[in-house]
Amino acid sequence: MIYLDNSATTKPDPAVLESFQQTSGRFFANPSSLHPFGGESEKLLTKAKKQAADLLHVQDEEIVFTSGGTEGNNLAIKGIALEHQTRGNHIITTDVEHPSVDEALKGLEQLGFEITYLPVDENGVVSVSDVKNAIKDKTILISIMHVNNELGSIQPVQEIGEIAKEHPKLFFHVDNVQGFGKVPLKIAESGIDLCTLSGHKIHGLKGTGILYVKQGTALFPLFHGGNQEQNLRSGTENLAGAVSLVRALRLISERKCEGIEHMRGLQRQLRERLIEMEGVEINTPEDAAPHIMNVSVPGMKPEVIIHMLGVQEIYISTKSACSSKQSDESKILAACGHEKDRSVSALRISLAYDTTEEEIHVFMNALSETIDQLKTILE
Amino acid sequence: MIYLDNSATTKPDPAVLESFQQTSGRFFANPSSLHPFGGESEKLLTKAKKQAADLLHVQDEEIVFTSGGTEGNNLAIKGIALEHQTRGNHIITTDVEHPSVDEALKGLEQLGFEITYLPVDENGVVSVSDVKNAIKDKTILISIMHVNNELGSIQPVQEIGEIAKEHPKLFFHVDNVQGFGKVPLKIAESGIDLCTLSGHKIHGLKGTGILYVKQGTALFPLFHGGNQEQNLRSGTENLAGAVSLVRALRLISERKCEGIEHMRGLQRQLRERLIEMEGVEINTPEDAAPHIMNVSVPGMKPEVIIHMLGVQEIYISTKSACSSKQSDESKILAACGHEKDRSVSALRISLAYDTTEEEIHVFMNALSETIDQLKTILE
Repeated sequence: MIYLDNSATTKPDPAVLESFQQTSGRFFANPSSLHPFGGESEKLLTKAKKQAADLLHVQDEEIVFTSGGTEGNNLAIKGIALEHQTRGNHIITTDVEHPSVDEALKGLEQLGFEITYLPVDENGVVSVSDVKNAIKDKTILISIMHVNNELGSIQPVQEIGEIAKEHPKLFFHVDNVQGFGKVPLKIAESGIDLCTLSGHKIHGLKGTGILYVKQGTALFPLFHGGNQEQNLRSGTENLAGAVSLVRALRLISERKCEGIEHMRGLQRQLRERLIEMEGVEINTPEDAAPHIMNVSVPGMKPEVIIHMLGVQEIYISTKSACSSKQSDESKILAACGHEKDRSVSALRISLAYDTTEEEIHVFMNALSETIDQLKTILE
Repeated sequence: MIYLDNSATTKPDPAVLESFQQTSGRFFANPSSLHPFGGESEKLLTKAKKQAADLLHVQDEEIVFTSGGTEGNNLAIKGIALEHQTRGNHIITTDVEHPSVDEALKGLEQLGFEITYLPVDENGVVSVSDVKNAIKDKTILISIMHVNNELGSIQPVQEIGEIAKEHPKLFFHVDNVQGFGKVPLKIAESGIDLCTLSGHKIHGLKGTGILYVKQGTALFPLFHGGNQEQNLRSGTENLAGAVSLVRALRLISERKCEGIEHMRGLQRQLRERLIEMEGVEINTPEDAAPHIMNVSVPGMKPEVIIHMLGVQEIYISTKSACSSKQSDESKILAACGHEKDRSVSALRISLAYDTTEEEIHVFMNALSETIDQLKTILE
């Protein structure tokens, strides 16, 4: 199998699975239970939170363990909106956010919130001055992703954070699900109030994630209840999930410098070969994150290419998994100003630290053959 | 170890853990990915959903996999409230709900909803006619638990369901986290629109659960995004969690007749011995669920008893784990009309199918000795 759909999800690291297994079996008591067995679980949870905080260079109490990226994004956005609606009802975002941000905001529109969707340039990047100009008195939240999930485009999060800092009454949320481990981001030093991470995008388990919530940021919880997770996310803690996620974070931290360089090299090789292929248009900008290469093959149905590669056990995707079964057109590519024949024919190749040159080589040959075959059929 | 805190959480069954492990390793593709590897995950998810539906005697599309009981309760309550607020803003509940229901409703009060909290009798049971009389034109939801998590008291869910059916414009939500596998409930035939289950209370894994959502019930999602789980709960599916939960449901289904009888016998033995103990008051009614025995020892601090038993590796609890670190008084016992010395001194012993007579015997002797020792100290 050649798995090049790492932006949809990654293979869990065996060490992560082992952490989960061991913790589930040995530390099954409820961390809220008063007996010493519950106390052991509580201690382990506190330790996991501290380790996560250390790895992210934030405070322990700023770590909220969640069930994943979609929960993190929804908790950040709805949590701010519902908690701070008396102060204002205006939210700023972009045209290229992940559905978990985009749809959450559309949900809030139904509840009376006003959303400004900022355009992006041909590379999928928002303009910092557009963000600045969009801020009103009643703006309570800016939600802008770090790395785009379809293109790999990097948003100017640091600069937006600087602007956000000048408006202490508004909050800045960054969806960093695609960026973590691929493009460095100093969460605590970038004017960010809320930052979403997902476990299964970094060789952790599905059902795990972290929302960074800067100290002093009040949220209306999505889950009320027993006041776990600093009162922001109630529910019996998934301790094994948290411990396994910390393991995944640690593995990424240890490998990221080398891993990013390695993926950057593979991405370069992909680009060099793709540029030479007739009928293929490269959508991912030169300065994108290292793990994504998005191309279009106008006139060819991407699902056919994916299927033909799939029978050879080579797995790539079209658009994001989260919108793969909806409309044919990539909202992201349309937002970049591409014509419809290009925005409906996108393929996304997404890498991991352990993707090999050999895999890229085999994939490129297979893609090339597939496109040639289709051309012959379509002629 | 003698673990008698099964209402807080249960030990995961090794078969459940194995399901999780195998699924995580082999079927890690995103079920939304279009390639055949994603297709395999999607097929497995569909199969898991069908199996869960069969085990619960409901329709496949009525199963929403969640991250647990707290999510299920919050999704049911906030989902109905936010979606149907234009029709009415009144919700009916009781004084003895779990914090994940109670606090969710308090959260909605902040957003302008009106909540009627119905009283309970000395056994912790709500009156059906009180429910009936509380219904107004603008009532959109009744949320009442099946089995109380502290006392084991069983609410007249079936009768309330009959009343709910007469008001087709309101929804009926049942928190069945404590009832499942302990007290039979025919979800589909009881006038229930929403029913919450939790994995980790039935030897499944933390971070797993199901919300039953009757066909045609519109909810405002807590998680917007990629429209997974019939558009009610977006986010990459925790497939391994879902498969492991189905395994847990199946194990419970296979063992429940025998398991319930067994626990009923142990509960009887506990009651017989506890009745004879001076200074101990039994709070759990005779007709309660079979797995909970709640007693008070007025004048003694429950955390001291829990600690003294804990050093002998015997684990019981006071109140529910979800409210164990808050106020000393049990809100539930207070709602039953008990005096403060009784409502601050509660102990909860909660059983599993595999709790043994021998364990109950050892526990009762230890409890008896502990109370005697404390009496001597306090004299």
